[in-house]
Amino acid sequence: MSVNDIVTSGAKPLFFLDYFATSELDVDLAEQVIKGIVEGCKQSDCVLLGGETAEMPGFYAKGEYDLSGFAVGIVKKSEVVDGKSIKEGDVLLGFPSSGVHSNGFSLVRRVLSDSGASLNDKLPDSGDITIGEALLAPTVIYVKEVLELVNAGKVKGLAHITGGGFTDNIPRIFPEGLGASVDVTSWVVPPIFKWLKKMGNINDQEMRRTFNMGIGMVIVTSPEWAEDILSNKGTKIIYKIGQVVKGNGVNYC
Amino acid sequence: MSVNDIVTSGAKPLFFLDYFATSELDVDLAEQVIKGIVEGCKQSDCVLLGGETAEMPGFYAKGEYDLSGFAVGIVKKSEVVDGKSIKEGDVLLGFPSSGVHSNGFSLVRRVLSDSGASLNDKLPDSGDITIGEALLAPTVIYVKEVLELVNAGKVKGLAHITGGGFTDNIPRIFPEGLGASVDVTSWVVPPIFKWLKKMGNINDQEMRRTFNMGIGMVIVTSPEWAEDILSNKGTKIIYKIGQVVKGNGVNYC
Repeated sequence: MSVNDIVTSGAKPLFFLDYFATSELDVDLAEQVIKGIVEGCKQSDCVLLGGETAEMPGFYAKGEYDLSGFAVGIVKKSEVVDGKSIKEGDVLLGFPSSGVHSNGFSLVRRVLSDSGASLNDKLPDSGDITIGEALLAPTVIYVKEVLELVNAGKVKGLAHITGGGFTDNIPRIFPEGLGASVDVTSWVVPPIFKWLKKMGNINDQEMRRTFNMGIGMVIVTSPEWAEDILSNKGTKIIYKIGQVVKGNGVNYC
Repeated sequence: MSVNDIVTSGAKPLFFLDYFATSELDVDLAEQVIKGIVEGCKQSDCVLLGGETAEMPGFYAKGEYDLSGFAVGIVKKSEVVDGKSIKEGDVLLGFPSSGVHSNGFSLVRRVLSDSGASLNDKLPDSGDITIGEALLAPTVIYVKEVLELVNAGKVKGLAHITGGGFTDNIPRIFPEGLGASVDVTSWVVPPIFKWLKKMGNINDQEMRRTFNMGIGMVIVTSPEWAEDILSNKGTKIIYKIGQVVKGNGVNYC
């Protein structure tokens, strides 16, 4: 999450530190967590400089932990991606997410507890994975593919789709007077979102305000660059999901 | 804690971000916390760049929160304070703490719960403050006074006394083969530590491994510079608490 936030400015992540707060330290569990952090740092070409492990048995319940992270990146002032050049007619390209990523878990927990579903139940239409596995799919790290496009000068704006979904994360990178028109049929919504919507009886608006719905990173680019990016994407999946229009906010169609 | 850690390298804190994780957001409470952070940033001449507020009602108990912070500082490579020049006969100077600072609270909670004491009880020998007030005394931020001495070229090593107390924090800045001899009668131990020791029936060794015992920052300097610092300290309290000796670890006498 940290490094995906950083690249939205066109910056290259430099280093990362974690904060791991738990009851009494479970070394095996901590090792698994650190292994994941190391993998994330590798994927984002970022140094794991250190971190803080806090044991608070009087505060955290046994076996539970909270984890946060902090990263610093670097970009030349003249090369900051800030959305200022975005204009009507520009194109929104979406990079697929692996699932819910790291947002919306309070709602996920409510759906699980209200529906009585088990994490070990098979997730419908997903092949053979369980709901638990789908929920724990690691967040996609977009650093390398995004920076490649940024360095090629093809990116006007970047939105990391986190809490608030498209609705909150896309418009805030636009100049005033511009909004987004998003074609919700233009990408494949992962099965976990369909399952959450159905089991939690959640309306589209709330789904879109809470979850990424299958798109974890949005690039705003000119129509010409968009064509260029899409025709050179090779085996990568990149969706053309909408365009920049007069107005404000996000219109879903 | 973050900026006190940073100055131990002789670095100047640049910016700070917080992570505030809670159940449902209590705006009044969050405002008080942020106010404290702002005050800490002012005291350390550090910019509060931003932060992350995480609402996790399914995880944190109502009214509870965890708080962590992250800071970045800067120092020229050639001016890093790393303890390499420390030698036998060098002097340890101690800056007073305001109390337990931010370490040892698991033990504090155990003492409170085992002894049945109330946070509203008066703390003996403290004038008129309660145990709760003594425990909540803000951590002293040593940034400005430490950097002043660092910039004057008078500091060989710095130890921020956190979890592990003198025992863990002082020796690790020494070159191999050197230890510390600390005169435990050389400074005033704040009443909260005497109270914790008595109510928790905690031996000296555990007290010293857990708490700062009244000294929050230790400077290692030459005998000449020590004399100079002590004679120019004005109204500030700085204790001469010990010296560097052959050996390892910390000897208390």
